[in-house]
Amino acid sequence: MSDNSYTNLAITPDEVAVFAIGGLGEIGKNTYGVEYQDEIIIVDAGIKFPEDDLLGVDYVIPDYSYIVENQDRIKGVFITHGHEDHIGGIPFLLKQANVPIYAGPLSLALIRGKLEEHGLLRDAKLFEIQPDDVIAFKHLKLSFFRTTHSIPEPIAMVVDTPQGKIVATGDFKFDFTPVGEPADLHRMAALGDEGVLLLLSDSTNAEIPTFSHSEKVVGASIQKIFERIEGRIIFASFASNIFRLQQAVEAAVKTGRKIVVFGRSMEKAIVNGIELGYIKAPKDTFIEPGEVNQFQPHELLIMCTGSQGEPMAALSRISNGMHRFVTLQMGDTVVFSSNAIPGNTHGVNQLINRISEAGAKVIYGKMNNVHTSGHGGQQEQKLMLRLIKPKYFMPVHGEYRMLKIHSGLAQDTGVLKENCFIFENGDVLALTADSARPAGHFNAQDTYVDGNGIGDIGNAVLRDRHELSEDGVVLAVATVDFKSKMILAGPDMLSRGFIYMRESGDLIRSGQRVLFNAIRKAMNAENANEASVSRAMTEAIKPFFYRELEREPIIIPMILTPDKK
Amino acid sequence: MSDNSYTNLAITPDEVAVFAIGGLGEIGKNTYGVEYQDEIIIVDAGIKFPEDDLLGVDYVIPDYSYIVENQDRIKGVFITHGHEDHIGGIPFLLKQANVPIYAGPLSLALIRGKLEEHGLLRDAKLFEIQPDDVIAFKHLKLSFFRTTHSIPEPIAMVVDTPQGKIVATGDFKFDFTPVGEPADLHRMAALGDEGVLLLLSDSTNAEIPTFSHSEKVVGASIQKIFERIEGRIIFASFASNIFRLQQAVEAAVKTGRKIVVFGRSMEKAIVNGIELGYIKAPKDTFIEPGEVNQFQPHELLIMCTGSQGEPMAALSRISNGMHRFVTLQMGDTVVFSSNAIPGNTHGVNQLINRISEAGAKVIYGKMNNVHTSGHGGQQEQKLMLRLIKPKYFMPVHGEYRMLKIHSGLAQDTGVLKENCFIFENGDVLALTADSARPAGHFNAQDTYVDGNGIGDIGNAVLRDRHELSEDGVVLAVATVDFKSKMILAGPDMLSRGFIYMRESGDLIRSGQRVLFNAIRKAMNAENANEASVSRAMTEAIKPFFYRELEREPIIIPMILTPDKK
Repeated sequence: MSDNSYTNLAITPDEVAVFAIGGLGEIGKNTYGVEYQDEIIIVDAGIKFPEDDLLGVDYVIPDYSYIVENQDRIKGVFITHGHEDHIGGIPFLLKQANVPIYAGPLSLALIRGKLEEHGLLRDAKLFEIQPDDVIAFKHLKLSFFRTTHSIPEPIAMVVDTPQGKIVATGDFKFDFTPVGEPADLHRMAALGDEGVLLLLSDSTNAEIPTFSHSEKVVGASIQKIFERIEGRIIFASFASNIFRLQQAVEAAVKTGRKIVVFGRSMEKAIVNGIELGYIKAPKDTFIEPGEVNQFQPHELLIMCTGSQGEPMAALSRISNGMHRFVTLQMGDTVVFSSNAIPGNTHGVNQLINRISEAGAKVIYGKMNNVHTSGHGGQQEQKLMLRLIKPKYFMPVHGEYRMLKIHSGLAQDTGVLKENCFIFENGDVLALTADSARPAGHFNAQDTYVDGNGIGDIGNAVLRDRHELSEDGVVLAVATVDFKSKMILAGPDMLSRGFIYMRESGDLIRSGQRVLFNAIRKAMNAENANEASVSRAMTEAIKPFFYRELEREPIIIPMILTPDKK
Repeated sequence: MSDNSYTNLAITPDEVAVFAIGGLGEIGKNTYGVEYQDEIIIVDAGIKFPEDDLLGVDYVIPDYSYIVENQDRIKGVFITHGHEDHIGGIPFLLKQANVPIYAGPLSLALIRGKLEEHGLLRDAKLFEIQPDDVIAFKHLKLSFFRTTHSIPEPIAMVVDTPQGKIVATGDFKFDFTPVGEPADLHRMAALGDEGVLLLLSDSTNAEIPTFSHSEKVVGASIQKIFERIEGRIIFASFASNIFRLQQAVEAAVKTGRKIVVFGRSMEKAIVNGIELGYIKAPKDTFIEPGEVNQFQPHELLIMCTGSQGEPMAALSRISNGMHRFVTLQMGDTVVFSSNAIPGNTHGVNQLINRISEAGAKVIYGKMNNVHTSGHGGQQEQKLMLRLIKPKYFMPVHGEYRMLKIHSGLAQDTGVLKENCFIFENGDVLALTADSARPAGHFNAQDTYVDGNGIGDIGNAVLRDRHELSEDGVVLAVATVDFKSKMILAGPDMLSRGFIYMRESGDLIRSGQRVLFNAIRKAMNAENANEASVSRAMTEAIKPFFYRELEREPIIIPMILTPDKK
């Protein structure tokens, strides 16, 4: 193949293109691409959870246009691990382009669950991969190596291209005493020796100067904590961190406690974990919810969802007396084996207050050593850079400031400054064995998912929602006759989220007078019509409300005419 | 005086009552009360900034009913220091009850500014106090002692009652090398020796095991940072921390930089600081905004507001090119001498990303030592407890979990467990020299301020705003004739914040059919009326939208009749 008419990227046929459809300038929706001639490899397909200002948006996904338009060339989506920001986009992607998915056993189990919910499982092309597999296409060859992270089976991708090897770490930390399999340091070292063209590496904790604690350290803390607690233990954690769950299970078994599990994702995780051999416990360790009352407090461990303060999750319901099987009681100890994700801090703090007020003990926070990050800090990022020794470097999986710091770390470890690329989603890097250059940009904006709708709301709708949330909405309606220039009915007002209308009689009456005068004046103008009178209503009532209340509700004016039919 | 008919508290005439109108179970709206017979002392009158879920609410203030109903007995509101959560409520309180305000010079200057904005300055009864003053009423005697905090002139209150001394610390840390006046340790020790009946102490940092850094440590870091920066320095901080401002001014003077100030509250703080002698600099240090371009980058310090990422503040505008006088340029260094208040983390991070993307350097975060808390950690809280040696203890200024930990610290320092009271706003503690007991509760709920309206929005309005923010609003309208049971016009729909109506023709047409059928059916029912038809519209269209989009907009149905009017 010698022409490159098949691609719409500004690259030459011998160049390898590397880009992100999502994951740069943000934490979330990781979706990276490696393209060479007629072959494209996608690494991960994640979602992002919306920030608070994206009112009513459930998820943010990438704009998949580039994948959809080039789906014949996509050899597969290769999954590094089973977290939502790496697999959550798969159902939305497969609805648009049914490309093959390659993933490890646990990731695949999680993906299957998702596809089933979306009715996509039957037609999906799913392939299981193992760390030692090699998958060779015409030009590109994929291999993998084990890393360590807060979910089992994290793997890094090695894409062997005619121009050199490209390594994508996926999420990682260096845990030298992990609960699961250790990272394959020797394979990393060997790759570094053989020569790596480009490294794409996890930037999440680039602002953290320290080395993350090992999962085993957390396990030891959990064991110690369990040993000194006399009442029931309620243990809340991220369900996906099966290692953590196993460590809690182990501590429960050692201290003679039976375990009951609450919350759908926690139940699923335990079932998956047992099936895949990550969670091991004597047969009668887990009990049914209905059996809770047959055991003494010191014989019980309750494992549940809700460590982020989610109002409908098991822990919230247990703490406010809404749970079917368990209510908080004196002597209970709640262990938060988690940290609060930034947007959730308030919710988590309120939950801790509520639990504490109910008379239960709460163990949380850094001092208790009951949680550790799944991402490596600066020391670990530098170790990865030192081992892999890439010629070119692209920090990924982070907001701009993290990418920037990570790029500095790469330079500290010997990567040339001009060989570091801080890119945005859609930017294309064109590589050969001895060159790298920015090669244009394609569209890779955010797409909002709200309920069933994908991409059907945008900034105008969100702006409206924001205004509605600040001061509510006022509907102003009148029936008029344009011929006689008479107001036949109204003006009336209805509102939601504005004020208690019933208790604001004077304000409403004054507002109606303002509207009445505005309508009458507008009707008497030449060429008066629905649009001009509606506009006059808004223009009159908006400043009136601002003057009276310093509030700016959204005004929906409505003019009705008797001849309308 | 021997009866207690004047009070509606459940106390005996010889008991002293202590209560909070705001400040317990929360960070914010600190307002405490000490009552003995016909005298009531109020300590502080703060506001609380609303959490994100209070949509559109500007401030939260206490329900001042108890003060208003008992205003004849209020001897004064005594202010510990000039932060918003201690003085912000004063205008709202004075609108309801013009009680005397006592405060130090800086607090008083800040209060005057507020009262002027609200048109209340002329009639306000303001009294300046100094730390050595003693103010004696008939039964109660007030004295004060200096503490250290992140604003000048923090004072603690000593209320001498016939039953013993009550000490309220206000906000404090123990800064042994402060920029301003040192805390009066000897007076605290003397009070402890003389005997203190009850201590109310700041619980903000009860979760922090360490001792807070001194402000001087921060000053030294600022000095070092300024020395090594070659371009312009943009310094963002809390305007109220005049010590911090002075340290930045000092470092600028030492490194030969002129200073320009942007942002209304920062300008005010500098003016106040100079007037009160807290900010000292050679006469030509400060320059006018228009003079910025007359100086080289290394000769400039820009001090500005916006360290919390506020979109309209100077720093945001400088960073996105919207500022009148200054635009970010290569070589600039932005110093965040502040921490992000929990709800602002996202905004601050976005701002840091934006500044960093623009090519400027950013210095922020703990590692750089450019900020320290104004509140003492556990060691400082214990030192206060050890010095004051109170018989009874009430942790204040904190959410429940902080109060709980602080109460544990008190017990560690020797206060009896049964002598610690974790109270809620409105709870009353009745004290004599050798007894303390909970004595009922009065109403002390949150009051919401939105624009000009105080208390005119409540949970129903907020619930509406929340629903509006999630899925928007749909207005459904039809003109019907109940006599002929005919639909004369419509049904029509208008929406805001829901979907792009124009691009959703099919959906709208299907929705109109659903409405049409629902209206027709409802009209044919016996006793059909506006209410029943409106209800039928909502009940039909709500599930339709949920089925189609999994969204639940607020539906406002409206039925018009030609005979109306």
